[in-house]
Amino acid sequence: MRRKIPAIILGAAGAVGQRFVQLLDHHPWFEVVALTGSERGAGRTYEEACHWVLDIPMPEWARRMEVLPTLPKAVDAPLVFSALPAHAAREAEPIYAQAGSIVCSNASAFREEADVPLILPEVNPDHTCLIHRQRRERGWSGGIVTNPNCTSTGMTVTLKALKDAFGVEKVVAVSMQALSGAGYPGVASLDILGNVIPYIPGEEEKVESEPLKMLGDLQGEAILAAPLTISAHTNRVAVADGHMLCLSIALNRPPSDMQEIARCLADYAAPQISRDLPSAPQPPIRVLEAPDRPQPRLDVHTGAGMTTVVGRVRPDPIFDVKMTVLSHNTIRGAAGASIYNAELLVKQGIITDEWS
Amino acid sequence: MRRKIPAIILGAAGAVGQRFVQLLDHHPWFEVVALTGSERGAGRTYEEACHWVLDIPMPEWARRMEVLPTLPKAVDAPLVFSALPAHAAREAEPIYAQAGSIVCSNASAFREEADVPLILPEVNPDHTCLIHRQRRERGWSGGIVTNPNCTSTGMTVTLKALKDAFGVEKVVAVSMQALSGAGYPGVASLDILGNVIPYIPGEEEKVESEPLKMLGDLQGEAILAAPLTISAHTNRVAVADGHMLCLSIALNRPPSDMQEIARCLADYAAPQISRDLPSAPQPPIRVLEAPDRPQPRLDVHTGAGMTTVVGRVRPDPIFDVKMTVLSHNTIRGAAGASIYNAELLVKQGIITDEWS
Amino acid sequence: MRRKIPAIILGAAGAVGQRFVQLLDHHPWFEVVALTGSERGAGRTYEEACHWVLDIPMPEWARRMEVLPTLPKAVDAPLVFSALPAHAAREAEPIYAQAGSIVCSNASAFREEADVPLILPEVNPDHTCLIHRQRRERGWSGGIVTNPNCTSTGMTVTLKALKDAFGVEKVVAVSMQALSGAGYPGVASLDILGNVIPYIPGEEEKVESEPLKMLGDLQGEAILAAPLTISAHTNRVAVADGHMLCLSIALNRPPSDMQEIARCLADYAAPQISRDLPSAPQPPIRVLEAPDRPQPRLDVHTGAGMTTVVGRVRPDPIFDVKMTVLSHNTIRGAAGASIYNAELLVKQGIITDEWS
Amino acid sequence: MRRKIPAIILGAAGAVGQRFVQLLDHHPWFEVVALTGSERGAGRTYEEACHWVLDIPMPEWARRMEVLPTLPKAVDAPLVFSALPAHAAREAEPIYAQAGSIVCSNASAFREEADVPLILPEVNPDHTCLIHRQRRERGWSGGIVTNPNCTSTGMTVTLKALKDAFGVEKVVAVSMQALSGAGYPGVASLDILGNVIPYIPGEEEKVESEPLKMLGDLQGEAILAAPLTISAHTNRVAVADGHMLCLSIALNRPPSDMQEIARCLADYAAPQISRDLPSAPQPPIRVLEAPDRPQPRLDVHTGAGMTTVVGRVRPDPIFDVKMTVLSHNTIRGAAGASIYNAELLVKQGIITDEWS
Repeated sequence: MRRKIPAIILGAAGAVGQRFVQLLDHHPWFEVVALTGSERGAGRTYEEACHWVLDIPMPEWARRMEVLPTLPKAVDAPLVFSALPAHAAREAEPIYAQAGSIVCSNASAFREEADVPLILPEVNPDHTCLIHRQRRERGWSGGIVTNPNCTSTGMTVTLKALKDAFGVEKVVAVSMQALSGAGYPGVASLDILGNVIPYIPGEEEKVESEPLKMLGDLQGEAILAAPLTISAHTNRVAVADGHMLCLSIALNRPPSDMQEIARCLADYAAPQISRDLPSAPQPPIRVLEAPDRPQPRLDVHTGAGMTTVVGRVRPDPIFDVKMTVLSHNTIRGAAGASIYNAELLVKQGIITDEWS
Repeated sequence: MRRKIPAIILGAAGAVGQRFVQLLDHHPWFEVVALTGSERGAGRTYEEACHWVLDIPMPEWARRMEVLPTLPKAVDAPLVFSALPAHAAREAEPIYAQAGSIVCSNASAFREEADVPLILPEVNPDHTCLIHRQRRERGWSGGIVTNPNCTSTGMTVTLKALKDAFGVEKVVAVSMQALSGAGYPGVASLDILGNVIPYIPGEEEKVESEPLKMLGDLQGEAILAAPLTISAHTNRVAVADGHMLCLSIALNRPPSDMQEIARCLADYAAPQISRDLPSAPQPPIRVLEAPDRPQPRLDVHTGAGMTTVVGRVRPDPIFDVKMTVLSHNTIRGAAGASIYNAELLVKQGIITDEWS
Repeated sequence: MRRKIPAIILGAAGAVGQRFVQLLDHHPWFEVVALTGSERGAGRTYEEACHWVLDIPMPEWARRMEVLPTLPKAVDAPLVFSALPAHAAREAEPIYAQAGSIVCSNASAFREEADVPLILPEVNPDHTCLIHRQRRERGWSGGIVTNPNCTSTGMTVTLKALKDAFGVEKVVAVSMQALSGAGYPGVASLDILGNVIPYIPGEEEKVESEPLKMLGDLQGEAILAAPLTISAHTNRVAVADGHMLCLSIALNRPPSDMQEIARCLADYAAPQISRDLPSAPQPPIRVLEAPDRPQPRLDVHTGAGMTTVVGRVRPDPIFDVKMTVLSHNTIRGAAGASIYNAELLVKQGIITDEWS
Repeated sequence: MRRKIPAIILGAAGAVGQRFVQLLDHHPWFEVVALTGSERGAGRTYEEACHWVLDIPMPEWARRMEVLPTLPKAVDAPLVFSALPAHAAREAEPIYAQAGSIVCSNASAFREEADVPLILPEVNPDHTCLIHRQRRERGWSGGIVTNPNCTSTGMTVTLKALKDAFGVEKVVAVSMQALSGAGYPGVASLDILGNVIPYIPGEEEKVESEPLKMLGDLQGEAILAAPLTISAHTNRVAVADGHMLCLSIALNRPPSDMQEIARCLADYAAPQISRDLPSAPQPPIRVLEAPDRPQPRLDVHTGAGMTTVVGRVRPDPIFDVKMTVLSHNTIRGAAGASIYNAELLVKQGIITDEWS
């Protein structure tokens, strides 16, 4: 067996950073060699620096690891996972990319840039080729590859299956999003206990634009955004993990019936290259028939939190079909997404262990 | 001062029945003379028969009142409030109506019947004239007047204001509904703690059809449903009181800007006859400017729970406008609605105290 | 009618500060003339500086009031309410007291000092005389009067009634405390949703010591602490308002039966001077007989949030009696407590409007 | 490898019954051959009869299994797990025991009877010998073996370790109990959202008596209850799984310091016969040092839900020591307890597969 690829986690103490630590525990291909944190955390052990919020205990190897400052860059590694907030990512990620690391980033900082791949391996693995343009134009030996916002994720996987079979024209998307999506400490308990907050800053803009890039066509070294309009309402609810989305969708070709839609979703297979990666969701989409599902509490762990769960597929009196979609926001929608992307990049030969 | 009109509450021990008891405490026009309950409750005092779930104490006059059986009818009164479930309402309400009572009903049993008024006083007070046809065709000396489903209520008030100013063509409506809407014991705590349930039996059908009747035009003694299409997704969330709705709306005439929409909502005035009734919401619609409002916990008590609260008025990339609407589901959307209807019927001379 | 006494609120933007603003709206004796805040808030209007968390709208007079810095002191007033955190209180309150204001403080900073009154008007109104020693020893023309920690409050009122009738020797007290007791933003939602946190820093120490001072005897100008031992466990639960306490109590004289205990609590009357003040709880203690009460959601508003609610009075197999106590932590246990203290001080002539 | 022992689950559709199904999936020694349910459920498949409330999917083998009536007894098996409510258990369990089955029961019906073992394998495995007296006196060829109430469980394990080292004299125990302890549908959501219910019918009596039997000494074929007094307050809180207990404990021999207490708990080993059984908790007790632990959300899964988790070990100003204890109420405190008991009975030769 080949040796594992060394990986760094930037911003390891936050809610998404913790998910990276947990999901990379016993990862077959990657081995965490360094954890970074804010100035306040740097110099302490991970156990001291981190208010662990997961219901799975912190891995032993992480407890005693010293938290390093994110900048100035102290450690080299072929692979960098970034759980940084957007402003910190904007500063730090280019420095790591320039030094030769492939940065698999969950941050929003570079997602919309024309030369930065925004990837879901079961949707658009071919878009990773933007990294060559990125390296050329920016003079980097490494590069940045991003995954979408947690709310865009489940929607985009669903829309990809529908687009391939029917074409998608319009989507009204209303989310009910989990607390872990706001990080830690995130939402104050007094604000959300027995309540709904109908606003998440910057979220609707991301949900309306990111899917268009991912569902777009690659033309040379540019993405032509998919000709699709999304209208989003994003809400915060008192759920720990699992973003729910109510979708009303206008298709280009009307389906013969709802069974055809359900089948198209349930049968969706990721592109060949993305199917058998360690974090590949099995299956990519699960369609539930019970009328009251999916539910975050009961279904969020489907496919180890990587599967997109769809239910309530039924006719829409205005558009063609409506449905409810659930996706685990810190696994499929954040840390798991970056890791799945990194696995794809290994398979594509963009990340290698011949680095140091 | 004239003497108060005697009123009966059918199904007084349930969650909506309790709201009737609370809202009719010290009502200036109505006096509760009898409470009815299921066979199990009948014969006990209201205090014994009722698991009181409101955070306002049970009124003293209600504690010692004996709960009577709903049927056979033992008591006569000019006014009957019905908090019965649909199947019980279908049996009992006609018996009271035939005997001469005006039944102001929160039940869904008769809402869709062509000769039964479905009323929101700030929307369609003229529709009460259907009661004459109802009396004639059914041979009743009293009658049944209904109010809509709790989720339809806030939406219909909002759409009425928009329809008058712009015309309304299509609405995608996604609800996040409170637990009290399911009655008591209603939703099991294990099902909703930290969870969302994306399904409420029968609810979407009501939300898609009831507004069309209320927004329809009276032609002779029939209602011509409004030419409007609604697509609804209804969800249950862990909130005690207050139904939230995310609306995406296509108008007939595009607004010049969002200010015009907000102003049209904020300035909406109920028809003259409904304005100064004791339960009339002041104002009918409140428009909030803060980007994260309305919220159930903070805004549900606006206008003593009778005001429809609107926020997040903004352009919709598919339709014309999107917004969030909040309405108190057991006050404006249930007991308060029936009481406001009864006040309207008094003003119209349909309910009188010259009855006995 | 005499003119109202001008009052300042220090730390007005926090959770307790907001309660002061709300409870002083339309107060018959006091008028808020200034609000202070942290450096960050100062210079903005109260509406801008404050994330309002109460479900009652912000009073109109407060919205446009400019938030002043707490220090350096810019405004004089005979009465100052302090909602400052302990460290800020330790610095600012003496400055106001020296300048002649009576500071009615909810902060813990000075509670335990020998010359500072720690007051519940229905328990120990005579302890206010410590203020003369305080003025003499510290050279202040005003003074500081404190109210206890929110968890000590309901327990001390209960123990006072029992002490007068039976004597109290030992108390095991286990709390289940509301989120608003931690201020805003306070407890992170991810930490408490579907959870219990069995620790509140510094809380058990306060609960074990403050009641001893309040239940102590005044000897000259010193308090002799009550000869009573308290053992406290303090827990945080997912409740918005209302601290619950399970008490197991050893008395000096055994009661003849539980009725005697319940009667002694229900009949407890505050000392004459404290009975008819505007914020006096009516009644001081309410005893509930239903086996499953008190509950925060149903009972926290008893007596406008000023009444201590007791239930489940029953024999204790180790000590003499056990019971459950509920008290509104931001009204009776914080802002309402300071206001009730200020009213007592007016009645005692310690606060006057002949000040400026 | 020997063949597995056939087992029946009585009352399989309820919340505890579901835990039996989940925990017996892939059990190394036992194989479920029948599921029983109420009259309403009987005749349907388990999937149809059961409202599954666990966040782990229903095992495939259970889905299609037909639910049989509990009575009249249709199936024979050497081992019967009972998740019946008390009244149904009182009728059905003797019928199975008489027919030769060993009934490992989670019901309270027979726990207090002098000839019925009440067992925690890490506490009193020798008490199972009562079954011989039970068989003799009742003329049964099988027998009933019970496990304690979910709230007694974690407390008894903790007290056993303390009793062995120091002797235990008095305990004040205040619980904060999870919703799953009330079964399904159990607690209504409107009753517990943002609330605490300070009463659980019959619970305090069990918590005050059951530990005395389990900690008692076996004298011949009788149990001499431990000379220990417990005072319990039991409360329901909005937590899904995991009962918390605050304990104040008087010991017979004072500890030298708190370290000695913590060590005695952390080092506690089950009697030899109970240590290596498949469901044996590893370790029996975990002691946490962080000041804010245990917490249900973070710690309930410790030792696969079988470990008793203790934290906040500190001096008690009235007694000797206070601490917080957490135990998973439907695993360690219910289904897992019965299964662990059955494993012990296999090891002791009381359950065998030579039965049919």
